[in-house]
Amino acid sequence: RWSVILKTNSYEFRSIGFVESCFKERFGTPRQPGLVPLARARLIIHDEFRGALEGLEGFSHLWVVFVFHQNTNKTVKNKIHPPRLGGEKIGVFASRSPHRPNPIGLSAVQILEIKGSELLVGGVDFIEGTPILDLKPYLPSFDSIVAASEGWLTAKPIERLSVQFEELALSKIAIYAKTSKYHSQDELKNLIHQTLELDPRPNFYKGTVENPDPYMSEYGFCLEDFNVVFQMRDGVAVVTDLIPDFKK
Amino acid sequence: RWSVILKTNSYEFRSIGFVESCFKERFGTPRQPGLVPLARARLIIHDEFRGALEGLEGFSHLWVVFVFHQNTNKTVKNKIHPPRLGGEKIGVFASRSPHRPNPIGLSAVQILEIKGSELLVGGVDFIEGTPILDLKPYLPSFDSIVAASEGWLTAKPIERLSVQFEELALSKIAIYAKTSKYHSQDELKNLIHQTLELDPRPNFYKGTVENPDPYMSEYGFCLEDFNVVFQMRDGVAVVTDLIPDFKK
Repeated sequence: RWSVILKTNSYEFRSIGFVESCFKERFGTPRQPGLVPLARARLIIHDEFRGALEGLEGFSHLWVVFVFHQNTNKTVKNKIHPPRLGGEKIGVFASRSPHRPNPIGLSAVQILEIKGSELLVGGVDFIEGTPILDLKPYLPSFDSIVAASEGWLTAKPIERLSVQFEELALSKIAIYAKTSKYHSQDELKNLIHQTLELDPRPNFYKGTVENPDPYMSEYGFCLEDFNVVFQMRDGVAVVTDLIPDFKK
Repeated sequence: RWSVILKTNSYEFRSIGFVESCFKERFGTPRQPGLVPLARARLIIHDEFRGALEGLEGFSHLWVVFVFHQNTNKTVKNKIHPPRLGGEKIGVFASRSPHRPNPIGLSAVQILEIKGSELLVGGVDFIEGTPILDLKPYLPSFDSIVAASEGWLTAKPIERLSVQFEELALSKIAIYAKTSKYHSQDELKNLIHQTLELDPRPNFYKGTVENPDPYMSEYGFCLEDFNVVFQMRDGVAVVTDLIPDFKK
């Protein structure tokens, strides 16, 4: 029966809008929603669906169903290496990896503001330009299952780095805060802090406890319209500078 | 910018499997997952993805991303009439209605058993033949937001009917229980009870407090491989008979 069903079951969906995110590239983008509470995005919904948003204002949270559009993998493998498992492999359906047979993403985010057909949301984990397929209200009665067990993620807490800022970086934050969506210097600094403490470096660069930064690299990731430059020093992420994003 | 983005952003997804559900038609199928804990379904995943399920066995719950394939509406409206709002309308993105611009469904279900590339799950709200697009582990750390507010659903509890069984129905349940997925008579009876107490009748048939069953109808809905026949008597759903499903 399979051959028939699989041949015929193909579905086409059209984006209902797209994301304007504080995250501009995969590097630095958190792997789950809520990890960077200050991470904000605007969901720009096509004007034809403006009426479909009515009633959402009473909800605090929202499911965003979206497309992982920045997947560069040409083929999908059944097993993936999640960062929190070190080198071990796991089935992709037992993970939230973007590299899925159907690259559909699902994130619960906080509704901050709804203006016409645009929604400002918080705690996002999606990248600039992400195509949105659907929005659904978060219904705690059905969606919140507190006692659910976490499988292989049990006892694998998210480790957080210490983060420090050099003077130059702080002075740049003061300047950028004036023009960004983040109105205060503190808020912008905390956004960078929350993002960096998750350690965005690929596992390959993280090294070992004895040698926590084997490549002595300077890293940069794009946030809003600037690049955050940081180095690892004795296991601490030190923000050294903020520079304008020349890609813009 | 919209015209460009909307014209180009169209995505094709292929089903990774399909559902064998205790619910065979829309009538009787609960509107949210978890409402009928005994409602079971088998997720038949294409064998090529068997390895992608590895690691799921440690989780208690699973997100199923699926297609609302039984939508008969040809056009999608921005506003819908949710059953719990009486006659009022609400934006479709503020609801979990199946009649969405992209008919993508999302349900958290309980994992009961995984055998090869088949999963037995509980608390389902999807219908036989539902195409599955994705499976994701339920991660309580990110997915469970207990304090989320419920918008227009606040103070709109789900009302439950009283359910009674006539002798004839009970004797049929005893017979059907022997061959169904529900091994005991009690379990099968409770499945029918849990399904019926949600009052599957369309609002149109529900009438008013004074006249709770204006059409004096006998109703039937298909469950597993039989039809459950019931009548409304003074606001109580009375199961009168179970008859084999002739559509099979």
